[in-house]
This record gives sequence, structure tokens and C-alpha cells, in this order.
Amino acid sequence: MTTTVAAYAAPAPKAPLERTTITRRAVGEHDVLIEIKFAGICHSDIHQVNEDWGQSPFPMVPGHEIAGIVTEVGSGVTRHAVGDRVGVGCFVDSCRECANCLAGMEQYCKNGTPTYPAGHDGQPTYGGYSTHIVVDENYVLRIPEGIGLDVAAPLLCAGVTLYSPLSHWQAGPGKKVAIVGLGGLGHMGVKIAKAMGAEVTVLSQSLRKQEDGLRLGADHFHATSDPATFTELAGTFDLIVSTVSAPVDLDAYLGLLAVDGTLVNVGVPAEPNSIRMFSLIMGRKSLAGSMIGSIRETQDMLDFCAAHGFGAEIETIGVEQINDAYKRVLDSDVRYRFVIDIATFAA
Amino acid sequence: MTTTVAAYAAPAPKAPLERTTITRRAVGEHDVLIEIKFAGICHSDIHQVNEDWGQSPFPMVPGHEIAGIVTEVGSGVTRHAVGDRVGVGCFVDSCRECANCLAGMEQYCKNGTPTYPAGHDGQPTYGGYSTHIVVDENYVLRIPEGIGLDVAAPLLCAGVTLYSPLSHWQAGPGKKVAIVGLGGLGHMGVKIAKAMGAEVTVLSQSLRKQEDGLRLGADHFHATSDPATFTELAGTFDLIVSTVSAPVDLDAYLGLLAVDGTLVNVGVPAEPNSIRMFSLIMGRKSLAGSMIGSIRETQDMLDFCAAHGFGAEIETIGVEQINDAYKRVLDSDVRYRFVIDIATFAA
Repeated sequence: MTTTVAAYAAPAPKAPLERTTITRRAVGEHDVLIEIKFAGICHSDIHQVNEDWGQSPFPMVPGHEIAGIVTEVGSGVTRHAVGDRVGVGCFVDSCRECANCLAGMEQYCKNGTPTYPAGHDGQPTYGGYSTHIVVDENYVLRIPEGIGLDVAAPLLCAGVTLYSPLSHWQAGPGKKVAIVGLGGLGHMGVKIAKAMGAEVTVLSQSLRKQEDGLRLGADHFHATSDPATFTELAGTFDLIVSTVSAPVDLDAYLGLLAVDGTLVNVGVPAEPNSIRMFSLIMGRKSLAGSMIGSIRETQDMLDFCAAHGFGAEIETIGVEQINDAYKRVLDSDVRYRFVIDIATFAA
Repeated sequence: MTTTVAAYAAPAPKAPLERTTITRRAVGEHDVLIEIKFAGICHSDIHQVNEDWGQSPFPMVPGHEIAGIVTEVGSGVTRHAVGDRVGVGCFVDSCRECANCLAGMEQYCKNGTPTYPAGHDGQPTYGGYSTHIVVDENYVLRIPEGIGLDVAAPLLCAGVTLYSPLSHWQAGPGKKVAIVGLGGLGHMGVKIAKAMGAEVTVLSQSLRKQEDGLRLGADHFHATSDPATFTELAGTFDLIVSTVSAPVDLDAYLGLLAVDGTLVNVGVPAEPNSIRMFSLIMGRKSLAGSMIGSIRETQDMLDFCAAHGFGAEIETIGVEQINDAYKRVLDSDVRYRFVIDIATFAA
């Protein structure tokens, strides 16, 4: 039996979000019904509402940083129980039979189902700006006791987006890691890389957030607007993770890598970048990309953050503040993630 | 005591090469005097003569694919003896104390001494188009008995330029490897990747060299001028090594990689390339560069080629044919490497 639940939705492309109701599917044999407690606001929510990445069905309910409590489980569910603290990230299903799914890299499944706005079949899906969601148990993560649901919500996208490349390219003791951009993604990169044991440098446009960066765990902080940064730090880093979503001077950043170093992009600039092959050849350097993380990596990340006692740095808002929050995200006026308190639907 | 020896040199930038004499340094305590038997013609020799990569001292004696016999050794030499079959590649010295030298990656030493045209101090050095050369023993390679000096010469640059990335990115059984471009570099890539046990595909502009490619060991051969190649082979390769020296459609080639695949450039286009980050992010792919190889890798490569019973595919010429050979290299009219028979200096 389907359920009608409250949600905040954009009724049309680029339109302000407004309160509405949506229908959630009946809880199937392998499904979990989650009462959502908190939902993070990811910059990509704004891109999706604006159709920056292509056409989508509307009304659109954004939100793929979901934390809540299980209130009902299907008869075949074994991984979760009523009362469990759980999370949902950027996808709620995948084909489970392609090479990437079988290798445990569901995020690269070509036929996966994003949490919103639509599955690969074009059918609309609705995200976390809502009181409840029904999700297959295999795509639901356990949120450990040591971590608040509010600060856990942004981990489901921002956290794993940084954890996955930092883990894959082996940030750790003895490694020099730079995080480019100190926003919602970057601040998680600093916390995670530091907890992994790496020596962490923030490369930010200005020194405006220097105090914050050091408080979050960075060992060094440099402004990319200062040309001296690129001479002083030439050949320094084993790994640079760039969270910037605009084209950057790749050759300049590659110059900061040591031999065999890697520059990983997790931001997605819409425009093409320019790169000189010489920047890669002189030192066997790599330019790579990484997209969110697998279900296993997401669980590992949640366990890792809980073990190290941290979540995201958040500013909690009520549902009626969502449109204002979007404006502030576009102005980079958030330290470092807005999280919607879903209880405010009842206010 | 210095020696005056015959050589072929470009007297000025872009000028035809002509016969001349040059002075080689006295054989020092750790030096080896080599009677050169064969010298390969690398496309970069032409770039250097044309000053495509910056100013150089002239007269310029090109040649960094050198094979010969040791005729004299310094008093402190332990690695080589008179009569040994030896080779010299792209560099004849390095600082031996920077992080890259200490890590055995002398090719990335910032203060190394290229075989020609000049050391990092700006002093001219003279390459292999010459009857003799004096080189520090640590930068001289052993050429195993099983391999002719003529077909060994091109291994010192073309061979190791492909061996190093194929080895570093672990081409081998179970791996699908593509080689882009079937020229002096590419044909060595096919032979080496096949000998390493990989499944090898040639991606060539047309099918003109298909028969040759298959004879050299390729399992598959596709034309990059055919758009179907890029749809048919989408998501196929673990490793692509591109030997192309002009900007290519990087996004199209990245589309041919499987998840976690790497596209390595060993060619050096002078112009910048365009790349969309999305091409890397969708599948955690990498774009990398690689430059020749270390002394250890060069020795490993020579031993590997000898063990598998192959050298380069060559066309042997006399010294007086060098200028004609340059024209034919520019016309891609060589299968697959010109090698100068240094004995023809005596003709």
C-alpha cells in the first residue's frame, strides 16, 4: 500500500521549492521504510533543480544526504530492523549484474537508480526533502551510535565523495595530501585525510578560511590566488583532491605533484579543461576523476568517521528556509553544509 | 686525453646534417669508451634539430639510441669490460642525490645530462651519430647476447619508452591493452605488451598497417578514423598507451577505458589538449604521462626483449642517407625505425 507523505519540491525547472505531498511505494519484501530525520543540501541539488545537467521530470524532490530511523521492514529484510539509525546516499538501486556491480562499484553501474530525480528508466524518483522514504535494504547504510544523525546526513554524499578517492589513492601516514577548495566537500576531505594520518594542506582561493581550515585539522593552508603558492609548493604532493566545480589551471596544479603523484577531480565542471601532456609526462603524473563511492565504501566511511568521532560541520535549518539556503550555497555562505531538520515539516 | 672522432651534425637549426668531427672527453676513472656500431633515428632527433622544444647549442649531433662495443674502460670501472656489448639511451648522467635519483627514477632528475644536445649546465653534449662516445659506466646498459646490436639500438629509447608504462601499469595476462599509433614507439608497444601476456589491440588512424600489426603480435586492429571503433570498444581497455604526438580527442579515448582504466601518453604534443572532467569521473579513470624509463627499467627491458627473442623492426641506412631518412620519418614512411650503420662512416 502506497503512502502519501509531505515533501519539499521544485514544481518546475529553476522554480523555488514549495511544500507538497508525494507518494512512496508500498514496503516490499526487501524494502525498508525510513522516517527521515535530517537531509543535507548538496550543491548538486541546485544543479538538478536548474536542469544544469540535462532534463528531469518535475515536480522534483531533491536530497541524497539522508539520515533517519527505520520504522518498518519488509518480510525478507535481514540487514536492518525497526529502530535502526540508517542513511541513504546518492543511489537507491543498481543492476546488480554488470561488471561494476559485481566488483562492488555500484556507483559506476550504467543502469543504477539515483535517489532522485529519475531512474535509468526515466521514471521519477524522489529524494530526501521529505518525511519518509522507501529503499531496498541493500542500499541503506548503518549509521553508528557514536555520530549524530544531523552531522551524519552530509556524509552520505560529501563524506564518501572524499573518502573514496582518499582511500583508493592511499592517503595515510607519510603522504602529503592537498585538498583544493574548502566547502561542503573540501571540509570533509580535510577531516578524513587528517584522520587517515596524512599531512594535509588546504589550497583555497584566499586565506579567508585559514583559521577554520587549521581547526578542521589541516597542517598547512595556502591561497591559490597567490602565484607564490605554485612555486613554493612545486613538486610537493603525493595526492591532490580538487573539489572545484569550475575549470582550473590543471598544468599549475599538476606542477604541485611529486613524481608519481595524482590529481583527482571530484567536482564536475561543465566546460572542458585545457591540459598540456608535458605536465603529466614530466614525473609520470596522473589526472583522475572519482564519483561518490560504493555501498561498501560508504559504510566503511561512516564507521571510520564514527571511530574518529566526527561528522560534517553543519548549519541546521527548517524546511521553510530551503530556498534561502540555496541562495547562500550559491554565495558560498555556508560553513560547511546546510542540513534540513525534517521535524520542521510538523511545525 | 680527448679524442677527435667522426660525426654527423646539424651545423645550425633546421639545417641538413653533414659530416664533421667532434671531440670526446678523455676516459675518466668511471668512464667507458664505446665504439658505436648502430644508432637509431628517433622522431625527437628531428624535433631537436628544428629547435621545436627550445634553443640548443649547434653544431648538434643527435642520437640517443646507441649500441656498440666497449673498447676502453677507466681504472675504477667495475660494471663493464672491454669487448662488452653495450647501449646508451636518452641520458648519460644524473645528479644521483635528488629524491628521484635515490628512488631509481633518474629519468625524472631535474639536473640530469641528456645524451644530447646539452646538459643542465647548458654545455653541449653530442649524441650517437658518431663513431665513439665516452659515458659514465652507471649510465651504460648491457645488451644481452641473444639480440643483434642493430635491432637493439632503438630499444634504448623507443623500447623503454613503452616498456616503462606497460610495466608500471601492469600490462599482463588478463589485461586488455591498446596501443595508439603504430610507428617507431607503437610497434615496440605491441611487441612488449604481447610478450607480457596482455591482450593487445592496435588503434591506428587507418587499417593500412593492419597486416603488420597482427604479425607483430596484436590480437585486434581498429581504425580510429572509423567512428564505430569508439562505440564498439567503449569501456574495453584496462590500459591505453598513446604514442601520438598531436592533440587527440582525449574524451573519446577515455571512453574506451573500463572502470579504473588508465590512458598514458608517451607522445608530447606541443599544443594543449582539451579534456572534460566528466570523462574521468565516470569510472574513476586516469590520464597519465610517462617519459622514457630509468636505468634499471632500461636494463630490465633489454633482458626482457632478449629473453623473448625480439628487437625493433628496422631499416638500416648509411650515414649519407640520414637527411633522406629524416624526410621519410616526417612522411611516416618507415617500418618501423631507421638505424644508422656507423661502419658506413669508413666508406
